[in-house]
Amino acid sequence: MKKTATEIKESQVKISDAFWSRMQEKVIDVVIPFQEKVLHDEVPGVEKSHAIENFRIAAGLSQGEFYGMVFQDSDVAKWLEGVAYSLAVRPDPELEARADGIIEIIEKAQQPDGYLDTYFIIKEPEHRWQNLHECHELYCAGHMMEAAAAYYRVTGKDRLLHVTERLADHIIGRFGPEDEKEHGFPGHQEVEIGLLKLYHVTGKEKYKDMARYFLEERGKNPDYFYEEKIKRGWSHWGQYSTEELDVSYNQAHQTIYEQKEAVGHAVRALYMYTAMADLAGTDGDDRLYQACRTLWDNIVSQKMYITGGIGGDSEGEAFAGNYELPNDMAYAETCASIAMIFFAHHMLEMDMDGAYADIIEKELYNSTISGMQLNGKRYFYVNPLECEPGVSGRLFGYRHALPTRPGWYACACCPPNLIRLITSLGKYCFSESDSAIYSHLMIGQKAELGKADITVETSYPWEGKAEYSIMPKTEEEFTLAVHIPYYVDLNREETSLTVNGEKRNLRSLMKKGYAYITRKWNKGDTVSLHFPMEVRKVYANQHVREDAGCVAILRGPVVYCLEGTDNGELLQSLRIPKEMRAEPYSCEEGILKGNTLLKIDGFRMVGSRELYSEKPPVKEKAVLTAIPYYAWTNRGENQMRVWIQEE
Amino acid sequence: MKKTATEIKESQVKISDAFWSRMQEKVIDVVIPFQEKVLHDEVPGVEKSHAIENFRIAAGLSQGEFYGMVFQDSDVAKWLEGVAYSLAVRPDPELEARADGIIEIIEKAQQPDGYLDTYFIIKEPEHRWQNLHECHELYCAGHMMEAAAAYYRVTGKDRLLHVTERLADHIIGRFGPEDEKEHGFPGHQEVEIGLLKLYHVTGKEKYKDMARYFLEERGKNPDYFYEEKIKRGWSHWGQYSTEELDVSYNQAHQTIYEQKEAVGHAVRALYMYTAMADLAGTDGDDRLYQACRTLWDNIVSQKMYITGGIGGDSEGEAFAGNYELPNDMAYAETCASIAMIFFAHHMLEMDMDGAYADIIEKELYNSTISGMQLNGKRYFYVNPLECEPGVSGRLFGYRHALPTRPGWYACACCPPNLIRLITSLGKYCFSESDSAIYSHLMIGQKAELGKADITVETSYPWEGKAEYSIMPKTEEEFTLAVHIPYYVDLNREETSLTVNGEKRNLRSLMKKGYAYITRKWNKGDTVSLHFPMEVRKVYANQHVREDAGCVAILRGPVVYCLEGTDNGELLQSLRIPKEMRAEPYSCEEGILKGNTLLKIDGFRMVGSRELYSEKPPVKEKAVLTAIPYYAWTNRGENQMRVWIQEE
Repeated sequence: MKKTATEIKESQVKISDAFWSRMQEKVIDVVIPFQEKVLHDEVPGVEKSHAIENFRIAAGLSQGEFYGMVFQDSDVAKWLEGVAYSLAVRPDPELEARADGIIEIIEKAQQPDGYLDTYFIIKEPEHRWQNLHECHELYCAGHMMEAAAAYYRVTGKDRLLHVTERLADHIIGRFGPEDEKEHGFPGHQEVEIGLLKLYHVTGKEKYKDMARYFLEERGKNPDYFYEEKIKRGWSHWGQYSTEELDVSYNQAHQTIYEQKEAVGHAVRALYMYTAMADLAGTDGDDRLYQACRTLWDNIVSQKMYITGGIGGDSEGEAFAGNYELPNDMAYAETCASIAMIFFAHHMLEMDMDGAYADIIEKELYNSTISGMQLNGKRYFYVNPLECEPGVSGRLFGYRHALPTRPGWYACACCPPNLIRLITSLGKYCFSESDSAIYSHLMIGQKAELGKADITVETSYPWEGKAEYSIMPKTEEEFTLAVHIPYYVDLNREETSLTVNGEKRNLRSLMKKGYAYITRKWNKGDTVSLHFPMEVRKVYANQHVREDAGCVAILRGPVVYCLEGTDNGELLQSLRIPKEMRAEPYSCEEGILKGNTLLKIDGFRMVGSRELYSEKPPVKEKAVLTAIPYYAWTNRGENQMRVWIQEE
Repeated sequence: MKKTATEIKESQVKISDAFWSRMQEKVIDVVIPFQEKVLHDEVPGVEKSHAIENFRIAAGLSQGEFYGMVFQDSDVAKWLEGVAYSLAVRPDPELEARADGIIEIIEKAQQPDGYLDTYFIIKEPEHRWQNLHECHELYCAGHMMEAAAAYYRVTGKDRLLHVTERLADHIIGRFGPEDEKEHGFPGHQEVEIGLLKLYHVTGKEKYKDMARYFLEERGKNPDYFYEEKIKRGWSHWGQYSTEELDVSYNQAHQTIYEQKEAVGHAVRALYMYTAMADLAGTDGDDRLYQACRTLWDNIVSQKMYITGGIGGDSEGEAFAGNYELPNDMAYAETCASIAMIFFAHHMLEMDMDGAYADIIEKELYNSTISGMQLNGKRYFYVNPLECEPGVSGRLFGYRHALPTRPGWYACACCPPNLIRLITSLGKYCFSESDSAIYSHLMIGQKAELGKADITVETSYPWEGKAEYSIMPKTEEEFTLAVHIPYYVDLNREETSLTVNGEKRNLRSLMKKGYAYITRKWNKGDTVSLHFPMEVRKVYANQHVREDAGCVAILRGPVVYCLEGTDNGELLQSLRIPKEMRAEPYSCEEGILKGNTLLKIDGFRMVGSRELYSEKPPVKEKAVLTAIPYYAWTNRGENQMRVWIQEE
């Protein structure tokens, strides 16, 4: 499957949307400046970063010791990548100048041979490249390449690009299939994505080849990391031992073609799948596409929370077994959901199937943005689907699933990942092929595409309507293919697609989740999509024991939850009736203002005061208030549930 | 509340009961000999014990190093205690001779000053009594005292008794309220029980006083263990640090009178409560009784599994918060349920309230004996109420909750605790006061009591009938008070109590769970109790979020469960109807032969193959088979659930 459509550049789309513009503003006005201060150690009371100081020390501009995680450099890279996209959203010469200054320091920190990793430059120069398993040198390199490609794409400036090309060349000089080179691959995948991005901006095949090498070398020798460990005789994380390693954690137990189940550390896995899908589409590599498809199917049909959360096992931030999706113990890392969007986007580039766009939507409206406080100032790493104060974040087994978002993390991967996702949102909205423009997401925007400029107006996700205004740049016929979300009932009378006000037979336009409208377009042509936005009850597969007897409430792409703040104590005693009546309404005040909330006619079970009793609990009517899941715990620590018992 | 009844001696009651005789035989024929071999290191393939060899080395009878846990001695003590009771059940001169031999070694291992703990005698003599917090010297001493008292009570032999008196005197010489003594108390409660047992057999007040001292000293200075740690400057379990300690784990955060909630390590807590209740009743100490009552109420009304399991937090083998009772992550240690019987028994001695006898029954028929494979050869430490193969015993959070019983443990506390419970079962059946005989448990037996010999015939717990034949030894009127379990419906016509065949008004006989029959008894008088044994659906309090929407199935004192072996896959998709029809039947073959099983007309929810779907699952009729919880996982590893969704 070769990519059938080219990627949209960040600068081609300007988001102008009630829901997302606010998110972008929050990220640009609050998160980017906040993280910049953190990186400069100017925020008292949060985990010390020292990340820029590490580069200054490595560059000889400052004296001192390295501080932070072995992958501390990646925080700077991810911030720079986010800054690049933000400059496309809203130019800011002063921010750009400061970013240029940081890039200058990075350039100075780079070693004459191209090597770049401040931990090893400052602290253990003798240990470079000896511990691919644990030490994240390639991971940091990959993030720097992503930042460089983004910065170049948006600003046209190539200083960081050249730094990362020299770094990539250094890596290519050391690793590879040739006999004289080392046959290694990274413990934490990411460099594969970075190398492919370098390839996409430079066109240099060597970077794509190197990405393929790292992907295909993986798992060829499942003992590689073990042999590396024995050879070096030391460990980065604690006591050295000659114990065997579980390399399924690193997806290194089999080759990428042999792996049929998504296992191990979820972010590592999804970064690998992302690179696999990008490469498959770039090279039109069917075998690689099939490998991606197998892993995709396993995730979406057996290992994904209804929120899009990925990772049911907090130990190793990992995928659990099939259907093992505990709600209060969920890991569902923000970064994993973000990575799932990357993966889905590359799958979509090969195969314009609405199922991929549906997953991008699911992630965007739920378990990615749940990672950020509505005010942009606090962040979740872990996104559980149930929270019990006094248990969540405190008891063994639940300690990772915090009841409120902290201000920052020592391992600060998630906040900057949110920055780069939200600032680059534009590129997920459209794809363009020779003959068609594909609209994947209903997000208000102005898009400058090859065949047309398109303005989208929508009140999504709160209402099922969007209007596309097309300003064609060609006289020739082309297709506008509009993604219709999977939950839209095409048989309903209220579901309609009109072209210039004229109703079209939507069902006959549909192909794999997209409505294909092919015509010669005139200036100001409009396509309007309307569909009823029903409140939906969703059941989990019977294999999911944690959701037995329960339903989740969705409306459009938005998953809802109940919080104690609105619904009183003991959410587990609440019931959704089999025949549910729910009324959506727009919240008019407070922190949730602008969100559509739901009033649901439900029940509360009132039972005996005894711990155990033969007396059945009594059903009392109760009006339940559901709020969007992503907005939970914005009003203080309280109980929360996504899955509610049905009665 | 002073004890109103004297304890029955083990030798006064001979169990002759379809259910329990088999258990006693298993313990005597299989478990005691097996553990004896383990203690002598004669069982290949199980955790090495070395416990007797440690005593031989300490006695100078052998050369070598100490091996095992710092509390390894207690395994020998608990085995000896079980052997003592078993000799009352079934005399065995050869076993007794071997036990005598071991006692001789123990005596030789005792130091001239009375000290006795092989770990410190052999390994760290300079560290004696420096680490009460971690090192279990007092714990081992307590178990040895319990063994000595039991051995003396059953065999009349006092060699071990004298050893432990010398040991107790050594302890009294070192610890106590006097200025010149050390003001300490144990990290793991147990010595308090042992000292009280020494008191009960010797009548020497100093042992009771010492028990009171250890109980009342506890928590007076909550920093005691911390100060002890700083003073000694070393740690037994790993790296020494000056970090603060969480002494609520040891119930040392407050005095015993200030503690209102059962917290910390469950077995430590329950051993403490046991000693508190024994002392309260012995001294008629109302303040201490109230302290016991508060903790009792907290446990039974907020912290106990329906199986009687105690401990919802596997970290620290501990009580979790109120109503925090996860089923698949339960700790519910076998030892904690056994200790709950000890506690209940002493509460009962003060207050003949059937609620205590009900808890003893609950523990006996459920989460104590679930700790032993039906063949007596394998044992559970942890007794979860839900098991999911592939998750239980494997994934983080569930690793402690094994899906099948292992053969032995490095920390082998539970199997010998089961030995001593089951062999001493007789003493829990009756109490006797000046004016009354109390029957607490419906267990077939011949009891030689003060005022009468009583024979009990019953098919309990499978049928609700028991017949008491009384052979009075006095001409005077006395009361036979028969415990009627809490679940018996006194309003049912089929519920009856007859004296010599003549029906009595049972309701008018009842006082706090006992039917009081006061009369002049003649030889051969019979009291017959009949009640219908209904299958009962029980609901958990709405605060218990893990049981939301679910019911548990009980019949008599027996909690039932569903296993995959009988019910196919996905037990979470099974439903018990609101109006349940269940048919009990006796299992005629296989390992469960003799148990009453249940056929229940239920449903299986059959849902979509998709992970999430709007399509509601469809109800299909399904006949469910429930088996007694205690007998779970005797037919291979499979799924199990106690709490089943109601439909």
